[in-house]
Amino acid sequence: MQILLTNDDGIHHPGLSALAQQLRSLGDLTVLAPDHNWSAAGHVKTLHRPLRVWEADLADGTKALTTDGAPSDCVALALLGLVQPLPDLVVSGINPHANLGHDVTYSGTVTAAMEAAIAGVPGIAISLDSPDHHEGPLDYSTAAVIASRLARQVLQHHLPDGVLLSVNVPYLSLESIRGVAITRQGLRVYRDALVRREDPRGRPYYWIGGDSPSGVADPGTDIGALAEGYVSVTPLKLDLTAMPEIPTIEGWGLTLE
Amino acid sequence: MQILLTNDDGIHHPGLSALAQQLRSLGDLTVLAPDHNWSAAGHVKTLHRPLRVWEADLADGTKALTTDGAPSDCVALALLGLVQPLPDLVVSGINPHANLGHDVTYSGTVTAAMEAAIAGVPGIAISLDSPDHHEGPLDYSTAAVIASRLARQVLQHHLPDGVLLSVNVPYLSLESIRGVAITRQGLRVYRDALVRREDPRGRPYYWIGGDSPSGVADPGTDIGALAEGYVSVTPLKLDLTAMPEIPTIEGWGLTLE
Repeated sequence: MQILLTNDDGIHHPGLSALAQQLRSLGDLTVLAPDHNWSAAGHVKTLHRPLRVWEADLADGTKALTTDGAPSDCVALALLGLVQPLPDLVVSGINPHANLGHDVTYSGTVTAAMEAAIAGVPGIAISLDSPDHHEGPLDYSTAAVIASRLARQVLQHHLPDGVLLSVNVPYLSLESIRGVAITRQGLRVYRDALVRREDPRGRPYYWIGGDSPSGVADPGTDIGALAEGYVSVTPLKLDLTAMPEIPTIEGWGLTLE
Repeated sequence: MQILLTNDDGIHHPGLSALAQQLRSLGDLTVLAPDHNWSAAGHVKTLHRPLRVWEADLADGTKALTTDGAPSDCVALALLGLVQPLPDLVVSGINPHANLGHDVTYSGTVTAAMEAAIAGVPGIAISLDSPDHHEGPLDYSTAAVIASRLARQVLQHHLPDGVLLSVNVPYLSLESIRGVAITRQGLRVYRDALVRREDPRGRPYYWIGGDSPSGVADPGTDIGALAEGYVSVTPLKLDLTAMPEIPTIEGWGLTLE
């Protein structure tokens, strides 16, 4: 069993080494992660420039590889043959914040697992639903244990073609977590605001600022499951077609006129 | 009617000015596009650095705005209030290549329209199915006319919440195009290959190379419609949940053990 581990926060992020320590028990582990943070970078395929790959050590001393490419580039490089034998499973994380609702299309953590699914390899993204204003280092140990146990179980089944899993773990002790819920994407409410500033030369610049997104904790959704103290496992697919809307839009009778 | 126009190829790309010339007839047009090419950059939200915005002119002299942010940042900036009054419609393109099948998650053109849909504004992405090895400048005029006509018709209807449209136009004359087909995402077959080179100092670097992706021209798909000479209109949704797989995965009985 060959496992590829990556993330979007960069090779030195503690969520990556926590996951590496736990996944090692499942098989032969290769870590290939970006050399810097790619959060909110989306699904990238770097074709316009070459990519470098270096050896690196994780915080705990695990031997790893790092690249100047994006998280999805890490997966592409590995599955195109940089990592031999080819990985049977790709795990991405642990992201320090939850990836819920519409977050998934922005998330480097999720798009790394998406790149695996495109190549026909099972992909699992792991995110930690940490508190908004947590002070001090986050504890990734529970999420890492759960990630490893879920990965073991997923490998015993057959993840359907074109499907990846987005796992969000509540920031609770293992004993306090109530179980595993299979969920759908909830509704994320973004509270971004445009912040205009001026530089020392009086020229404007803009931050996308505002509060953290909130969410609607509907039953059956990722947001709802976390609110109830469950680990949320959301199966995502690569086909974004809005199938139920096709008859509606066909009814519009769009023409070339 | 306020229309925001953006793209992922940058403010000076001829596909953008072709579209600007045609969309102007539908309402008040604001162009806000990246200052450089962001192809295959995916869905980006730039939170870690501020964004600059400058005035610029399109190739045809149209007044425009440009930013050092990504295509989806352009849409976010505009819809957060940079563009007043707020846009009623976002059109992204014209991308010089088709965006088919799984391409949509990589595509800056499509993710710009996705950002509009997240904000509750109709979003349309326009891509041109140009030949693989075309020499000389592409002709965007037909695609621009079709884009404008489709946008006019879409505005007469109500695009369902959370749905955006990905439009792919065949590289044919207007007279040769057979009509408009409402399609689902087809199956893209990527033919990427890892190309290893060495720099003048003997250190390796890697290109993601290989042939252009091919596609399976199944009836009812975006790829199939283009192959038959139709404009393909694919409704895409923001909810990526693999709903039909939920009962299967629930049946696995995943646990925390």
